[in-house]
Amino acid sequence: MGFVLYNTLSAELEEFVPINPPQVNIYTCGVTVYDDSHVGHGRSLIVFDVFRRYLEKLGYRVKFVRNFTDIDDKIINKANEENKDFMSIANRYIARYYLDMEAINVKPANVEPRVTEHMEEIISLISKLIELGKAYESDGDVYFSIDSFKEYGKLSKRSPEELEAGARIEPSLKKRNPLDFALWKASKSHEPGWESPWSYGRPGWHTECVAMIFKHLGETIDIHAGGIDLVFPHHENEIAQAESITGKLFARYWMHNGLVTVGGKKMSKSLGNFVSLKEIYTKYHPDVLRLLVLFTHYRSPLDFSFEKMEETKKAYERLKGAVEDIEPLKAIAKEGKPVVDIDFL
Amino acid sequence: MGFVLYNTLSAELEEFVPINPPQVNIYTCGVTVYDDSHVGHGRSLIVFDVFRRYLEKLGYRVKFVRNFTDIDDKIINKANEENKDFMSIANRYIARYYLDMEAINVKPANVEPRVTEHMEEIISLISKLIELGKAYESDGDVYFSIDSFKEYGKLSKRSPEELEAGARIEPSLKKRNPLDFALWKASKSHEPGWESPWSYGRPGWHTECVAMIFKHLGETIDIHAGGIDLVFPHHENEIAQAESITGKLFARYWMHNGLVTVGGKKMSKSLGNFVSLKEIYTKYHPDVLRLLVLFTHYRSPLDFSFEKMEETKKAYERLKGAVEDIEPLKAIAKEGKPVVDIDFL
Repeated sequence: MGFVLYNTLSAELEEFVPINPPQVNIYTCGVTVYDDSHVGHGRSLIVFDVFRRYLEKLGYRVKFVRNFTDIDDKIINKANEENKDFMSIANRYIARYYLDMEAINVKPANVEPRVTEHMEEIISLISKLIELGKAYESDGDVYFSIDSFKEYGKLSKRSPEELEAGARIEPSLKKRNPLDFALWKASKSHEPGWESPWSYGRPGWHTECVAMIFKHLGETIDIHAGGIDLVFPHHENEIAQAESITGKLFARYWMHNGLVTVGGKKMSKSLGNFVSLKEIYTKYHPDVLRLLVLFTHYRSPLDFSFEKMEETKKAYERLKGAVEDIEPLKAIAKEGKPVVDIDFL
Repeated sequence: MGFVLYNTLSAELEEFVPINPPQVNIYTCGVTVYDDSHVGHGRSLIVFDVFRRYLEKLGYRVKFVRNFTDIDDKIINKANEENKDFMSIANRYIARYYLDMEAINVKPANVEPRVTEHMEEIISLISKLIELGKAYESDGDVYFSIDSFKEYGKLSKRSPEELEAGARIEPSLKKRNPLDFALWKASKSHEPGWESPWSYGRPGWHTECVAMIFKHLGETIDIHAGGIDLVFPHHENEIAQAESITGKLFARYWMHNGLVTVGGKKMSKSLGNFVSLKEIYTKYHPDVLRLLVLFTHYRSPLDFSFEKMEETKKAYERLKGAVEDIEPLKAIAKEGKPVVDIDFL
């Protein structure tokens, strides 16, 4: 069952050794539900779906948790635009996400926790950080003090000084150090919020994942995964909070997939250069997308274009033809299992 | 802010007095996600949506929780038919449910908890009942002993003897009393399941709601709502578990809506006489359905037919025309709020 894995934390290929075999606990950062998922999301989802299926095939018992960020400024803005409840927006895009996942054959996670259902855990986590002197309240907000965590920067391999110079950090009079990050933000009275010891407010993005990991997977997990763009600040900030509380390693292996680009630029909502998953799977068999993703090493950038989709479609058809000629695979295909189980695992 | 409410528990109209005003905690039993929602579900959803909006209009701060039953024999059967993961089926129908709710303008609950995300709470609840001598393990299953709860039958107003005579209870060698109900059922090895002190298994339907209410709303809630068909055994069994643990009243008010029938017979999946919500809202403005529901007292049966939909459509159009002639309402309508907020509250 042995294999090696590139660990962003050590920056080395390491033999994969789970904490409690055959159990393997994996967490990946899920989507913020304010719009449809695009090929950039799809790549990460497919990469870790294939990885998970591989682990299961090796005999590991995988507990896979992928969250929904269902409260966030972008969701609130969208709700305001449409004059709707923020939860209506969140539910609509959770719905579309589930339909997308079924269409592209990404297995459901074992648990897909929503932030709004973990307020108790989030508030208690923040309270602990304040008690330990790792976080401080400031005018209804709560910030993590990065000076309190000596190993800050260990995942992104940069010192706080370098990070500060390179990062788009907005200075704030509320913060002691510009790199300090919000664990809790006060809401305005017309905005969604939850009662807390500090204010009527909502949690910061970096906090929710730690609270959900502790709740659903424990204090040290085997693998924390996500896109390479999450290394800093998101994952760095997760480590700072989690390890400040437990004094233990948070995740043994950190796996990050490369970005999807379009003409060299990151595919993203904000740049407006995205192609939705729905556009892909209404035009192509979903395995064509899967094949496109798997033709590129998961840590390399993947430049997307419809020309590449067309080329991959041809490759897919050749592969499919070949598979259908192989007697034992034909039998498996007949059982109705998705082709991907045969092709790639 | 006063009004009266029919309480199934007292079988009387009572003045509504919340436990901690202005807070009002409401729980309604949600859908089992193995197929599309139909008009029978829609009625219950609309009735309690309108009731909730009414409370909010009166100035109450409502916390509204509606669960998803996302593990269940019907879901497992559907998954087997399609040769899919049970979670794929659950996610697909949660997705369709969310899209239905937005289409018929039912506000999202504040929390929509899923059973599969509350296994820890469910297992700890069952453990407590066993410790207290209220439940017993039997061959990997766990049953609640209804003889241990003297008030059993207080909601449905029948004695255990009458219930036993009238109910379609399957006798089982595993049970001490035929009315004892399963809190935990052992799963076969190929079925979905969770590790527990008793077996690899899954929770009984009656247990999940209690665990989710304790977690999200507390030990005594203001209002527990649902369809009249849930009074026995579901709600009776919820009371037995909850009050056995806390020794306190579980819900102050029990509200039950009448059934939707078709030619006098209950609209249900199993009878095959259902009309999906999607069929309705793709043919009619969703407020026509809302008006149909509200034209009948919520506790009376509602016999559904497309003739009635057509009549209601005419009534809706007259009402809409009238509303559009009233100056102050026109202004509110312009803000983009759904018409229902104006018409009925």
